[in-house]
Amino acid sequence: MREHSGLLTDLYELTMAAGYVEHGFAGRATFELFVRHLPPRRSYLVAAGLEQALDYIAHVSFTSEEIAYLRGHPAFAQVGPRFFDFLASFRFHGDIWALPEGTIFFPGEPLLRVKAPIAEAQILETYLLSTLSFQTLIATKAARLYTAAQGRSVIEFGTRRAHSIGSGVLAARAAYIGGCQGTSNVYAGHAFGIPTYGTQAHSWIMAQESEAEAFRRFVELFPNHAVLLLDTYDVRAAVETILAAKLKPRAVRLDSGDLAADSIWVRRRLDAAGWQDVQVFASGDLDEDRVAELLARGAQIDGFGVGTALSTSSDAPALGVVYKLAEMEESGAVRVAAKFSHAKATYPGSKQVFRFADAQGKFARDVIALDDEHLPGGTPLLVQVMHAGQPTLPQEPLGRLRVRFLDSFQRLPEPLRRLDAAETYPVRHSARLEAMLGQVRERVSRASSRTTR
Amino acid sequence: MREHSGLLTDLYELTMAAGYVEHGFAGRATFELFVRHLPPRRSYLVAAGLEQALDYIAHVSFTSEEIAYLRGHPAFAQVGPRFFDFLASFRFHGDIWALPEGTIFFPGEPLLRVKAPIAEAQILETYLLSTLSFQTLIATKAARLYTAAQGRSVIEFGTRRAHSIGSGVLAARAAYIGGCQGTSNVYAGHAFGIPTYGTQAHSWIMAQESEAEAFRRFVELFPNHAVLLLDTYDVRAAVETILAAKLKPRAVRLDSGDLAADSIWVRRRLDAAGWQDVQVFASGDLDEDRVAELLARGAQIDGFGVGTALSTSSDAPALGVVYKLAEMEESGAVRVAAKFSHAKATYPGSKQVFRFADAQGKFARDVIALDDEHLPGGTPLLVQVMHAGQPTLPQEPLGRLRVRFLDSFQRLPEPLRRLDAAETYPVRHSARLEAMLGQVRERVSRASSRTTR
Repeated sequence: MREHSGLLTDLYELTMAAGYVEHGFAGRATFELFVRHLPPRRSYLVAAGLEQALDYIAHVSFTSEEIAYLRGHPAFAQVGPRFFDFLASFRFHGDIWALPEGTIFFPGEPLLRVKAPIAEAQILETYLLSTLSFQTLIATKAARLYTAAQGRSVIEFGTRRAHSIGSGVLAARAAYIGGCQGTSNVYAGHAFGIPTYGTQAHSWIMAQESEAEAFRRFVELFPNHAVLLLDTYDVRAAVETILAAKLKPRAVRLDSGDLAADSIWVRRRLDAAGWQDVQVFASGDLDEDRVAELLARGAQIDGFGVGTALSTSSDAPALGVVYKLAEMEESGAVRVAAKFSHAKATYPGSKQVFRFADAQGKFARDVIALDDEHLPGGTPLLVQVMHAGQPTLPQEPLGRLRVRFLDSFQRLPEPLRRLDAAETYPVRHSARLEAMLGQVRERVSRASSRTTR
Repeated sequence: MREHSGLLTDLYELTMAAGYVEHGFAGRATFELFVRHLPPRRSYLVAAGLEQALDYIAHVSFTSEEIAYLRGHPAFAQVGPRFFDFLASFRFHGDIWALPEGTIFFPGEPLLRVKAPIAEAQILETYLLSTLSFQTLIATKAARLYTAAQGRSVIEFGTRRAHSIGSGVLAARAAYIGGCQGTSNVYAGHAFGIPTYGTQAHSWIMAQESEAEAFRRFVELFPNHAVLLLDTYDVRAAVETILAAKLKPRAVRLDSGDLAADSIWVRRRLDAAGWQDVQVFASGDLDEDRVAELLARGAQIDGFGVGTALSTSSDAPALGVVYKLAEMEESGAVRVAAKFSHAKATYPGSKQVFRFADAQGKFARDVIALDDEHLPGGTPLLVQVMHAGQPTLPQEPLGRLRVRFLDSFQRLPEPLRRLDAAETYPVRHSARLEAMLGQVRERVSRASSRTTR
């Protein structure tokens, strides 16, 4: 795949862009990307994916071969050369504001705001939605596992079940932001500097005549890193094999069976042998509920490997994220835009989110306001990340994004941190924004009644 | 992302490979990739993703910079130069058999079988699992939408909610194999020759002062392709606007509200105006149940745009696909391998799937057998696609894969085609395979009791 191809979008973004260019719409549009509703059982979201989104925006282009494809597309049969010239020299000239990655946020709050010539902003829609929604989904799921594990480590193991290999790489990144300690994905480790984990699978054992021999060879080759997998044939027999041969590993791993009971038995047996420093690691169809349940049952597990449930956010595999026109600026005049169709109304105007904390520094409430409002005591959350198509901030190290999440998480009121939150975080719109919504509703209703009369 | 990077794998594949190389395991292993169980409400699976898997296998490599990263990884601290030399000259030398894309198959049946030096076969595991499981998942979901739409067209619209942009491109490909008529994803259209669809979003309307003017400009620019979106403000007012201005489009689209009632009203109004050839298209949080329900309610809809539910297979976002060692061939001797841990037993031996049809040509039953068995009357489904690391077959055009699915679907017994199947397709193992499982079980149990005694 050509990573910065302008064709990485929906066809209608390009037909609309053709319409804007052909009709000479020079206006600058403000689009806002936000989540409509929390997925089931979520009480907050963790922003992620901005780095990939900005990298795309900074480099997106159309090759002559890609433009030739569009010229030959039946939809563009009547479109003149102006649009294809526009594509040939396409680059993004706009401004972008966004929530820094690792920020905890809520529905209705813009995760990203784009102000740019409307054709440019339109073409980016599809890429921005898929990039930000996916990583935000996974970072949010990781935060739930971080919660459930109560300080024990969680390693992201899900590349094999991710929605394509590239999705696995990005899931590893997002999971790390959301509190995971590392990943099994080597490419993500290399590309993003994430700690990587993993040692042996059942196939290592099965490929050899004897389990004892398979363990011995592994500990010899990886004296400080071997994590021996116990459940290929029989967990307790495997532990006895390791003890009898004095093959002290760094850790052992359970991947099936009754993880609570087996971990308690294994821990006791290792301790009795004086191997208190050998850790017990567990994996196998885990999710945050299984992790919480295992710990509630007294499981003696030091770390969890979580795959499918984390890397696909399997209980809530999509985020209802949208990219909506909020404002049009043309010939110096600003016109705000809103949509009122069934249950999908959007607020008009270019917005900022202000967060208010209580005396202890805990997050108390957010107010979504117009970006030129000043709300004393509130911290504005959206920061400018691009000006006239150029990044305005240096790229942050991934570790700092993870720390931002961990710090924010500590400031989230305790009832909201639970797997099933007891409260909803208070988010409201400013008085000016509410008034503006009413005005737009009235304007559109007048225009519409004129039309149908 | 470097598309053919050998680092696109889990760390444990590389530590095991290091173990095989350092211990001089020259044996050829057979690994089989199969699905353990059907996802909820599925009664069959549609194979997809082979082309991307084979492309990776044919080109996978490790750069010197990637090898330097591994050398510096603490896990490899004690690993000698032999393994890093192996990576530097890495290429795949093995043989591969697979189900052709578009084939309907069932749990337990190998979707792919690899026979190769064990370290090579091991390293590929993660990539193969993620690539084949994702596209198979989406092709299978598409088949359900194809079923529900009863001959009407279904267009894949889900890139924005896919798990990253690359996942969206591959979802478009898989959805087309599974019976969709096209996609909104332009890159997929260009790369794979899939028909692409889409014209305007709400933002086109909202960006302009008047809906009527927005419609007029669009129909002028796209006289044969305009699909006008009716629900930005008010569906019925929009239809009257279009009729009053005589802006005859190719189709209209409903994206929210009561799609059944609105489509009936719109159809009647268009027909009354003599616009019988203007199609009605629907979208907006659709899935196979919604499509079936709309048609059952008499909705007058000619085509459906389906996004999130299709491109994330949201009701079943992961496939329980595994890659298991079945056989080891070393110094001329063959040893079969199986695993018996809790509820996760696998059959040993290198396998083939034979499909038997009834007198009408409908699929009657499958038998999973050893690959050297001959079952008279059964058609072997796995075909060799790679020999000694080289593809053995020309790449098939995507349209042919779609036709293979559509043909197979017609041969699937009707009760299995329903959204909630009334039957389970019969798949059994050959007598030789059952006997072999018993023998391996006995061998491992003897070996294990020796160890623990």
